[in-house]
Amino acid sequence: MRAVDIIQKKRDGGTLAPEEIAFVVSGVTDGTLPEYQTSALLMAILLRGMTPDETAGLTDAMVRSGVRVDLSAIPGVKVDKHSTGGVGDKTSLILAPLAAACGVVVPMMSGRALGHTGGTLDKLESIPGFRTNLTLTEFQRMLQEVGCSLIGQTSEIAPADKKLYALRDVTGTVESIPLISASIMSKKIAEGIDALVLDVKCGRGAFMKTFDSAKQLAESLVSIGQKNGVRTEALITAMDRPLGRAVGNVLEVIESIETLKGRGPRDLEDLSVRLAARMLVLAGVSPDTSDAEARVRGAMASGAGVEKFREIVRWQGGDPDVVDDYSRLAAAPHVHTVKATKPGVLSSLDAELVGRATMALGAGRDRVDATIDPAVGAMLVAVPGDRLDAGDAILELHYRDEASLARALPLIDQAVTVTDLQPPPPPLVLAEIS
Amino acid sequence: MRAVDIIQKKRDGGTLAPEEIAFVVSGVTDGTLPEYQTSALLMAILLRGMTPDETAGLTDAMVRSGVRVDLSAIPGVKVDKHSTGGVGDKTSLILAPLAAACGVVVPMMSGRALGHTGGTLDKLESIPGFRTNLTLTEFQRMLQEVGCSLIGQTSEIAPADKKLYALRDVTGTVESIPLISASIMSKKIAEGIDALVLDVKCGRGAFMKTFDSAKQLAESLVSIGQKNGVRTEALITAMDRPLGRAVGNVLEVIESIETLKGRGPRDLEDLSVRLAARMLVLAGVSPDTSDAEARVRGAMASGAGVEKFREIVRWQGGDPDVVDDYSRLAAAPHVHTVKATKPGVLSSLDAELVGRATMALGAGRDRVDATIDPAVGAMLVAVPGDRLDAGDAILELHYRDEASLARALPLIDQAVTVTDLQPPPPPLVLAEIS
Repeated sequence: MRAVDIIQKKRDGGTLAPEEIAFVVSGVTDGTLPEYQTSALLMAILLRGMTPDETAGLTDAMVRSGVRVDLSAIPGVKVDKHSTGGVGDKTSLILAPLAAACGVVVPMMSGRALGHTGGTLDKLESIPGFRTNLTLTEFQRMLQEVGCSLIGQTSEIAPADKKLYALRDVTGTVESIPLISASIMSKKIAEGIDALVLDVKCGRGAFMKTFDSAKQLAESLVSIGQKNGVRTEALITAMDRPLGRAVGNVLEVIESIETLKGRGPRDLEDLSVRLAARMLVLAGVSPDTSDAEARVRGAMASGAGVEKFREIVRWQGGDPDVVDDYSRLAAAPHVHTVKATKPGVLSSLDAELVGRATMALGAGRDRVDATIDPAVGAMLVAVPGDRLDAGDAILELHYRDEASLARALPLIDQAVTVTDLQPPPPPLVLAEIS
Repeated sequence: MRAVDIIQKKRDGGTLAPEEIAFVVSGVTDGTLPEYQTSALLMAILLRGMTPDETAGLTDAMVRSGVRVDLSAIPGVKVDKHSTGGVGDKTSLILAPLAAACGVVVPMMSGRALGHTGGTLDKLESIPGFRTNLTLTEFQRMLQEVGCSLIGQTSEIAPADKKLYALRDVTGTVESIPLISASIMSKKIAEGIDALVLDVKCGRGAFMKTFDSAKQLAESLVSIGQKNGVRTEALITAMDRPLGRAVGNVLEVIESIETLKGRGPRDLEDLSVRLAARMLVLAGVSPDTSDAEARVRGAMASGAGVEKFREIVRWQGGDPDVVDDYSRLAAAPHVHTVKATKPGVLSSLDAELVGRATMALGAGRDRVDATIDPAVGAMLVAVPGDRLDAGDAILELHYRDEASLARALPLIDQAVTVTDLQPPPPPLVLAEIS
C-alpha cells in the first residue's frame, strides 16, 4: 500500500477502504508516514469529505492507535458527556456528580481551555491540590469507589489524535466535520464508555456558528458512536451568550458548586439537569427523561450531588472544604464594573467576545503551552433580556493588572448590545439528535 | 504573514495575493516553510484551482527563486520549443538545428525520460561523449557561436520548482494545471528566451488524455508566457500512437538524423517542420508559416540542418561522425519481431503501452535515479492505417536480455489492435493556441 495512492483516491473524491485508513493512522502514530503526506491527505479529506463509514473507520483506527480502557469489571453502565466547547460552559462539574449520585458510572476525560473557550481541566485545577493527571489504574479504582472520575486524556488514549490535531492546527485542516468527529469520538470511545451524551454548541461563541453545521456535526458524532457500539445522542444547544453568569476558572467552580446546591442560574441548572437526565436514561437508571429529571433534581435538593462533588475533589487530592468556603479559592485583586451608558434592554452579550475578553484577562490561553490565571474572569450582572437603566451594572471583570483590563474592555464594549426592544427569550436546547 | 492563513485562504477558494505566493515560494526555496504546510497548500491549489493571474504570479516567484539568464548580449531573437512529453517524440533534435540553421537563436534546456515518456537529454547522451551539463557560461558562449545549445536544467534555474516537484510527486499533487503550468513556464522563462513554441500532447500516450484538458493546459501556458513577457504559442498535437517509428534513445537519434537528411517518417518530419516554422515566425525570421516552412524545408534539403546538428554534437563533446556512421552508436544485441497473427488493418498502436514496453526493455526510467540503456527500444515496421497479412511484421523490439523482453511483450500485445476496418487517418495537429 502506498500513501500517495491513498491521497490520490481521496483527492479524486473516492471512498477510502478501512485498511487504507488504518495504514495512514498507523503511519501517523509510529511516525513512518511523512507529515507532508499526512497533511496533503488531511486537506483532501477537508475538501472532499468522508462518508459516515469512512469517518467511523477513521475513529476506530484512532482508538486502536492506543489503549481502549476496559471498564467491564466495574458494575453499572458507564456514561460520559462531551461538549464541543463554549463560554461559561461548566455543566461537566455539575452533571458528573449528579449523574454519579444517581447511580451512573461517569468516566470523564476532559480537555483544556483553548482560544475563547474554557476547559474542564483548568476549572478543576483551580481547586487547590486537585490532580487531573491520574493514571489509568487510579482512574479505574476511582470509578469503582466513587462512580465518577474527572481526568485529562492520558498518553495511552488515541495517540494518533494528538499528532493529527497538532498537524491540522498548522495546515488549515481543523474545520472538517469528519476530522473533528473522529477526533472527539476516538477519545471518548477509548475511555471504555457504554453510552455518551453530546452537547453540540451552536452560535456566536461556538465552533459551529450555524444550526446546519452543528446539526451535521451532531449527526456525524452520533453515527460514529453507534457504528462503534457506543449508544450516543446529542443535544444541539445555543451558545450565543455565556452559559450561566460566571466565565473564568474559579468563578465557574463557585457557580458550579452553587448550582449543585440549588442556587445556580436557571439556564445553567436546566441544561445540566437535562444532560444528566439523558445520561440516566442511557444508563437504564430511568425509563424516560421526566423520571430522570426528577431524580437528578432530587439529588440536587438532597445534597447528594454536592457531596459527590466533595468526594471527587477529596479523592483527586483537592481541598474538599472549598465546597463550603469559597475564600479557599484564588481571587483576583481587582474588580471593574461595566455599566450601561443608556437605558434599554440588554439584547445580546456576545459569547465569543466575552470569552476573548476573559482570555485577555488571563483566564484562557491562545497557545496550548500558555499558562492561565485561575482567579480572573467575568461575572454577568445582567443577562440578555434584562432591562437596564443608565448606570446599571452589566458585568464585573475580575482582573489582576490594568494592562490586561485595558485589552479586555474594548472586547466587552463590542460584546454588549443595548436596544430599545425586548428580544424574545431564546431557546437553549435547539434540537435532539439520536 | 502566516502560512496557515494562506493555506486557509486557498482552501476556502480565495485568490492569493502576489506577496502571499512569493512568501510561500521563498519559504520553499530556503527551506523555512515546513513541507507539511507546502503539501497542504498544494492540495488546496489542486482542488480549488488558481486564476491565470495567480498562476502567472506563482511562475514569476519560481523564476525569481533562481537565476533568470540574461541573453540580451547575444544578437537575435531567442526562441525555444517545449513538449509536454510523449512517446517517440524526438522533434527537439530535429527542429533545434533546423531553426538555428535558419537564423533563430535556440537556447534549449530539456528534461529526462520519466515513466513511459522519453527525454531529450537521454537521447542526446546516447551519442558517445555528448555533454548536456554545460555551465551557464558555456551555454551562453555556445549560443553566441553556434546559435543553439541543448542542455539540462542547471541548478541555478528555478530551484523552487525542483523542490515543489519532488513534494508534488509524493503527495498526489502532480495533476494540477496551474502547478504543471508554473513548473514548465518558470524553467522556460528563466532560460532568458524571448518567445516559446509549445507542443502540448494529447491522447493515450500523453499526460493530458483529453482534448479539453490539453486545451486548458495550452491556454494556461500561453497566458503565463504572455503575462511574463515571453511571446508564447501552442500546438495541441495527437499522442495516441508513437511519433515517427523509433522509440528508444539511440534509435531515436538515428531517426532524427535521418529526418534532418530528409529521409524521416512523414509525421515526424511534418511536425518538426511545423514547430520549427512557428519558431521562425516568432523570431521574425519569416513573415508567416508558409514562408517559414519553405525555409525550414530548404535547410533540410540543403543539408544546413544536419550540419548544424553535427556542429552542436561536436561543440558539446559528442562524436560528430555518428551523423554519417550509425554503427558508432550503441546497438542492442538482439532483435525480436512482433508479427500480425491475422490479416487486417493495424487500427491502433497505443503510445503509452509502447512507451511502457520500451521502459521495460530499459529505455526509460520508473524512478528519477534509475539508469537507462541507450541501445534498446522499438522500431515500428507498420503504423496505424497499414494493411497487414498474417505473419507481417508490426514492430521490432531491440533488447538486451530475455527477461526484459518477457516483460515488454505482454504490453506490446495489449498495445496492438488489428481490425477489419480501415480507420480514418488521424490529424496530427489538433489545434493552435496563441
